[in-house]
Amino acid sequence: MRTQVVIIGGGPSGLLLGQLLHKQGIEAVVLERKTREYVLGRIRAGVLETGLVHLMEEAGVANRLHKEGYVHDGTQIAFGGEMFHLDFMALTGTPVIVYGQTEVTRDLYDAREAAGARTEFEVDHVVIHDADSDKPHVTYEQNGQTKRIDCDFIAGCDGFHGVSRNTIPLNVRREYEKTYPFGWLGVLSETPPVHDELIYANSERGFALCSMRNENLSRYYIQCALSDHAEDWTDKAFWSELKHRIPDEIADKLVTGASIEKSIAPLRSFVTEPMRWGRLFLCGDAAHIVPPTGAKGLNTAASDVHYLYHGLVQHYHDKDSDGIDRYSEKALLRVWKAERFSWWFSGLLHRYPDMSEFDLKMQAADIAFLRDNEAQQRAFAENYVGLPY
Amino acid sequence: MRTQVVIIGGGPSGLLLGQLLHKQGIEAVVLERKTREYVLGRIRAGVLETGLVHLMEEAGVANRLHKEGYVHDGTQIAFGGEMFHLDFMALTGTPVIVYGQTEVTRDLYDAREAAGARTEFEVDHVVIHDADSDKPHVTYEQNGQTKRIDCDFIAGCDGFHGVSRNTIPLNVRREYEKTYPFGWLGVLSETPPVHDELIYANSERGFALCSMRNENLSRYYIQCALSDHAEDWTDKAFWSELKHRIPDEIADKLVTGASIEKSIAPLRSFVTEPMRWGRLFLCGDAAHIVPPTGAKGLNTAASDVHYLYHGLVQHYHDKDSDGIDRYSEKALLRVWKAERFSWWFSGLLHRYPDMSEFDLKMQAADIAFLRDNEAQQRAFAENYVGLPY
Repeated sequence: MRTQVVIIGGGPSGLLLGQLLHKQGIEAVVLERKTREYVLGRIRAGVLETGLVHLMEEAGVANRLHKEGYVHDGTQIAFGGEMFHLDFMALTGTPVIVYGQTEVTRDLYDAREAAGARTEFEVDHVVIHDADSDKPHVTYEQNGQTKRIDCDFIAGCDGFHGVSRNTIPLNVRREYEKTYPFGWLGVLSETPPVHDELIYANSERGFALCSMRNENLSRYYIQCALSDHAEDWTDKAFWSELKHRIPDEIADKLVTGASIEKSIAPLRSFVTEPMRWGRLFLCGDAAHIVPPTGAKGLNTAASDVHYLYHGLVQHYHDKDSDGIDRYSEKALLRVWKAERFSWWFSGLLHRYPDMSEFDLKMQAADIAFLRDNEAQQRAFAENYVGLPY
Repeated sequence: MRTQVVIIGGGPSGLLLGQLLHKQGIEAVVLERKTREYVLGRIRAGVLETGLVHLMEEAGVANRLHKEGYVHDGTQIAFGGEMFHLDFMALTGTPVIVYGQTEVTRDLYDAREAAGARTEFEVDHVVIHDADSDKPHVTYEQNGQTKRIDCDFIAGCDGFHGVSRNTIPLNVRREYEKTYPFGWLGVLSETPPVHDELIYANSERGFALCSMRNENLSRYYIQCALSDHAEDWTDKAFWSELKHRIPDEIADKLVTGASIEKSIAPLRSFVTEPMRWGRLFLCGDAAHIVPPTGAKGLNTAASDVHYLYHGLVQHYHDKDSDGIDRYSEKALLRVWKAERFSWWFSGLLHRYPDMSEFDLKMQAADIAFLRDNEAQQRAFAENYVGLPY
């Protein structure tokens, strides 16, 4: 079998790339290790930058997003029992859209099926061959059979634990990593959100985030120890701790309920360089991870997709390899900006075990500067709504 | 003997306060441990914020400053062999003035003498008595005699090692401190400055700063190990190391010469709270220290002087104690902003021994964001030229 682009990984970045290429008459096959239902069962963040929204529009899959998504003109920062508002519209003219990653993925699968584009589910033992040659191919196992696809290019959209990154030899790969000394305990509950905007809270007891999916689906997080287990946190203990970390006026309004999902995620900053090796291109989590503070994960994957999509179109339509030749350089330039923001915003809001009294004062001064200084607010907002591609 | 305000410390903040009070008909005696010549022999930074310049004008001592000072409309940041300009005038409408702290001090002494105001030099064993009562007094020794001054208020302008801060009982005092794992090796040389603006350089070999006093007096610094000794650094070794840390185009223009002063200073962030205890008010280094990156030391002392001066005028002229009652709160609010900026700017430019590869990438991303983002530049420039009092 032969196709133009093999996309490894049927998550949102692989699907978005596939749909964009399809619209341009470029054929791609998506290989996904799990089932569609499994992929759609993953709980992820849902704050979309305008850049991603525009890509969804270009892919023809933005109708439901515009109908059901929530336009957020700003966000709330809580500290020391008080809260202040950062007005993205006033600061940048751009909002963000709250629309769950699961919904993005669902829309993309629906469009992919409607287009009759090929997706292979439950593939195993994916191996990338000869990516550093002009004739790469991919093999995989499915239903006990070994299959092969020859292709022009391979897009590695298979996440942090996928095969794509590890296909690049160690001697050409450089990796940068920071692990954080805490995790996020997240709870999903069928309750109305406590506020119409996200609330990012720095409290003496640690970070908390009040987020949402829709009018009756709330997502809350609290910073926890890495040694904690989600099952040891009763719903009651979670709600009690959350209330201690947000301003009283907000805690008083919090509607609690049974959790329908509860899990602990570690926080990590990670980047691999380069993002291209021969005819293999890494996209999204396969190449970089951000801590979830500021919701840059999916949005940064989208910027990779943007650069790779335009590079491939330039290659196929204009016979010009400049876009794919400069893919790694262009993608990384923006990746590092998102890494910087996510790292900085995490540092602003969390309690680190080794913070001195002076460090705590500097964190408080950083928050006060953001609260009081319009230029700092604008620098923040430009990052939050998404720096230009 | 009796006066209205005893000012302990004849450095620039004590002298500036004395001169401002004198203009308002409020009598002060300045006590200085050393001689005038010794004080004027201290080498210190010389970048003045507009706020300090305005205070000098109000004190009637700004003529020479305006004649001989250098108006700097911006500064240079060097990184990775390249350099970019931050234009304070375009970003904030405000410049800074380069005029040595020694010259500020000289102008203030000249004015103090011309006014016939009392300064006691070479005083020893200064003791502050009953600062928490309505009738404080100060005793000191001079020429083998013990002397006493009764007063209304005491301004502690005697620096980090002075008696003023330590007069405040430990149980009402809270101190915050950070020490940095490196020092600054500074050289003063009678050579023309390498650039007409300051150059702050982050290099793989550590921080460097190209500064100046006048057309034929340059001040250069390089980050060094705390275990280094200035006398082990030959002039030749210093110039060689400096050239390695600044862009080639600048290094090629550097005029070197014999050092006329060479010393190593540690870097420290320090704040004591509160800055008032009864009738004792701490000003400047007596209450807080910043690392020299960004030259906030004297400028932050000046903001303390501003609040204390206005508080005392309000007390004596309007019989209103609000200004002195809120002195500590108001002064600290701005102190913490200067501490934040100095700490952040130090972090942006130095190499720390424990930096990971990821940390280095974040530092590079921070510098790139400052280079590329107008809002970040403005936030930087507003801090550099001085936040409003």
